[in-house]
Amino acid sequence: MRHLLSTKDLTRDEAIGILDVAEDMADVAGREIKKLPALRGKTVVNLFFEDSTRTRISFEAAAKRLSADVINFSAKGSSVSKGESLKDTAQTLAAMGADAVVVRHSASGAPSVLAQSGWIDAGIVNAGDGTHEHPTQALLDAFTIRRRLHGAAARGKDLDGVSVTIVGDILHSRVARSNVWLLTTLGARVHLVAPATLVPLGIADWPVTIGYDLDAAIAAKPDVVMMLRIQGERMHAAFFPNAREYARQWGLDDARLEALPAASLVMHPGPMNRGLEISAKAADSAQSTVLEQVANGVSIRMAVLYLLLSGTAEL
Amino acid sequence: MRHLLSTKDLTRDEAIGILDVAEDMADVAGREIKKLPALRGKTVVNLFFEDSTRTRISFEAAAKRLSADVINFSAKGSSVSKGESLKDTAQTLAAMGADAVVVRHSASGAPSVLAQSGWIDAGIVNAGDGTHEHPTQALLDAFTIRRRLHGAAARGKDLDGVSVTIVGDILHSRVARSNVWLLTTLGARVHLVAPATLVPLGIADWPVTIGYDLDAAIAAKPDVVMMLRIQGERMHAAFFPNAREYARQWGLDDARLEALPAASLVMHPGPMNRGLEISAKAADSAQSTVLEQVANGVSIRMAVLYLLLSGTAEL
Amino acid sequence: MRHLLSTKDLTRDEAIGILDVAEDMADVAGREIKKLPALRGKTVVNLFFEDSTRTRISFEAAAKRLSADVINFSAKGSSVSKGESLKDTAQTLAAMGADAVVVRHSASGAPSVLAQSGWIDAGIVNAGDGTHEHPTQALLDAFTIRRRLHGAAARGKDLDGVSVTIVGDILHSRVARSNVWLLTTLGARVHLVAPATLVPLGIADWPVTIGYDLDAAIAAKPDVVMMLRIQGERMHAAFFPNAREYARQWGLDDARLEALPAASLVMHPGPMNRGLEISAKAADSAQSTVLEQVANGVSIRMAVLYLLLSGTAEL
Repeated sequence: MRHLLSTKDLTRDEAIGILDVAEDMADVAGREIKKLPALRGKTVVNLFFEDSTRTRISFEAAAKRLSADVINFSAKGSSVSKGESLKDTAQTLAAMGADAVVVRHSASGAPSVLAQSGWIDAGIVNAGDGTHEHPTQALLDAFTIRRRLHGAAARGKDLDGVSVTIVGDILHSRVARSNVWLLTTLGARVHLVAPATLVPLGIADWPVTIGYDLDAAIAAKPDVVMMLRIQGERMHAAFFPNAREYARQWGLDDARLEALPAASLVMHPGPMNRGLEISAKAADSAQSTVLEQVANGVSIRMAVLYLLLSGTAEL
Repeated sequence: MRHLLSTKDLTRDEAIGILDVAEDMADVAGREIKKLPALRGKTVVNLFFEDSTRTRISFEAAAKRLSADVINFSAKGSSVSKGESLKDTAQTLAAMGADAVVVRHSASGAPSVLAQSGWIDAGIVNAGDGTHEHPTQALLDAFTIRRRLHGAAARGKDLDGVSVTIVGDILHSRVARSNVWLLTTLGARVHLVAPATLVPLGIADWPVTIGYDLDAAIAAKPDVVMMLRIQGERMHAAFFPNAREYARQWGLDDARLEALPAASLVMHPGPMNRGLEISAKAADSAQSTVLEQVANGVSIRMAVLYLLLSGTAEL
Repeated sequence: MRHLLSTKDLTRDEAIGILDVAEDMADVAGREIKKLPALRGKTVVNLFFEDSTRTRISFEAAAKRLSADVINFSAKGSSVSKGESLKDTAQTLAAMGADAVVVRHSASGAPSVLAQSGWIDAGIVNAGDGTHEHPTQALLDAFTIRRRLHGAAARGKDLDGVSVTIVGDILHSRVARSNVWLLTTLGARVHLVAPATLVPLGIADWPVTIGYDLDAAIAAKPDVVMMLRIQGERMHAAFFPNAREYARQWGLDDARLEALPAASLVMHPGPMNRGLEISAKAADSAQSTVLEQVANGVSIRMAVLYLLLSGTAEL
């Protein structure tokens, strides 16, 4: 694997390959010394044009567990804020010997531009670009579902026949997009539930079904309900009346949790707005995979960095 | 040791145990390669809700000298500032595999909440919480006093009979509180000197004596005078007329330094306001332990991280 | 070498010695594992009173490639911003065991003050001080010129007879100053071209010639043209009418690039203002060494840290 830019590009076998390597990486977390020498001498740069402490430290922990050197480059207060172009930033990191660059950018497509530009030879990992994609989030979500369904026998398996309902602001969500492509590639059936004003144009071309009634979606007994985070700044953008109204119509509250089959998974990419898109009870229930998702995020990111930088899938 | 939350909890033997391990750690600083492999594969997270570069880099240096991986998490610009709860932050760090979390928080008791919550399994180190405690500061102070008194023969010893006078804004000082509990546990006699407006309610229950006249306290020839830092933001809070007046009444100026026995130690937790609570001459005198305190801080923090994460007191 | 404060202090042999060690370091970058154990157990502190992400990460990459521990200390939000003196900051870092301190400061001379103060025993590296010097920049520039001229046979060589034209805001440029001293020490002939308002008083004492016409300077066929960065904040300081006018008179535009001999090098310390002091075509031409300068920067900084901390020039 040369870069990880989107899940739309991934074939079923490539996706399963990443999940399988992540299984190996998850085993490392259980060892006495949670560290592999695999990427010693490699340099991973976290190039963050948007703040995201959670994603940054997940990649940082993953890289360090593989013995890579990590350099954090926050675009704030840097030459970027002095007007340096993406091209010059990329070429500078290349010249300094970056082996992988993990990019978070507010502009959709920025990581792809980097990867296709020829400005930099390093492996590029998209850590979230505008409303486009957040591929490691989708991979960790798929990994989490597969593990819950198949346990120790997960290796090699896909998500054939699994039904996943994604709920919330689909319009602005890169998490939703990356999950739609990846989960359907792996054989899952994806249903989206959103306020009509938060559904993207062009949704007809997506390999999904769509609905506008969360209770109806829950009554259909999906295997997985994935709640999206409501972005505070968009809450005030007049897409819906107010937080309480949003929670009432689109939140996974206690009553809806109750209505869900006991075996259905409750997922959320975090950070959660407890009481808004998800109730505290739902977040903390045995069905919730929220913390497994975080833990699996480190394994997935180890797998991605390993595949990009070691040039092999063997540990 | 599972956590280090306060010095009030420590027994005499526990406290001496930490100081003794710190003696071993101080020896490492004298080696050709100042590094131990003891915590390889462990992850230490510096979770700082308040800025404190000095404390953060002291813990960072300590963790790296023990070969741990360090991840700095400043709450500014993070999901915390987007409203994430302490619970979710803690659970996220746990899920990412944090083995120890060093917490600085403006709310008294935040580290204890973390430790007792069950949200996170990692060892919690209180790096300063509100006006409550700053236990590694008190431990490094006790270590510094013990070393000055007993030199190479310090191991196993307590501070029996040592007289310590702490001067300044006791009301707001977590450093004062942690020192009061620890030093008295180790057998020292503690005398507090403060403006009447900066004495806490409930002081009658503390194992100390209290006075309002610094010159009288110095005339009593204490073994140690510990000056507290005046916080600029509180200087303007109308507790006392102005900086010059504060320095005149409560500062360790040149005349008071002169009046102090030559063998008495002058301590300050730093950063110092030279000319305010301490004169430059006092700060730089042979009696001053200010820089030893900083150096000993790394040894103490190495000891604490080692005891929390290695599960043994043997090197 | 004890410190690296300025290039004015360096003898010809000392300078060549650093460049030769940097050649060894550049070889490391070509290895399978780009890492040397040379500085294991050493602590390098990046003490930055001014933001400079590029310089900071170049030093960070260099230190990590030598297996040193790196601690980043940005003065913003630190006790420095609470009024701590340079003396107390330095003594604190010394007490924590810093072996080298890389200093960027807005005040000319701050690194020299640190080095001569006795406050700290660590090796001090000047990473840019006010308008005074930026010695590692000049060293990497000299290294880049030497490599382009002599290739694999560069070791031991100086820059005898090489003609270098430096163009732009000489008055405020620490890069220009460091290059003037170093390049002339190495035998190069340096010509400066600048607006009359941006020439320092006292230039008559510099070992350079000076001109006010870029086209005339280019017609003289220099071996190297080094363009300085225009600082946005000074653009508005009324030294010249506006950006377009500056570019027209003092920028290396396409026509001037054309007029330059094909063998002449085009240099820029970065980050570039494309279209202002340098055209995109000039920046990306085969004559441009901009990216080699960045790559060589890591090798030079490895060499400097190695020479300061290992106490030997042998690898």
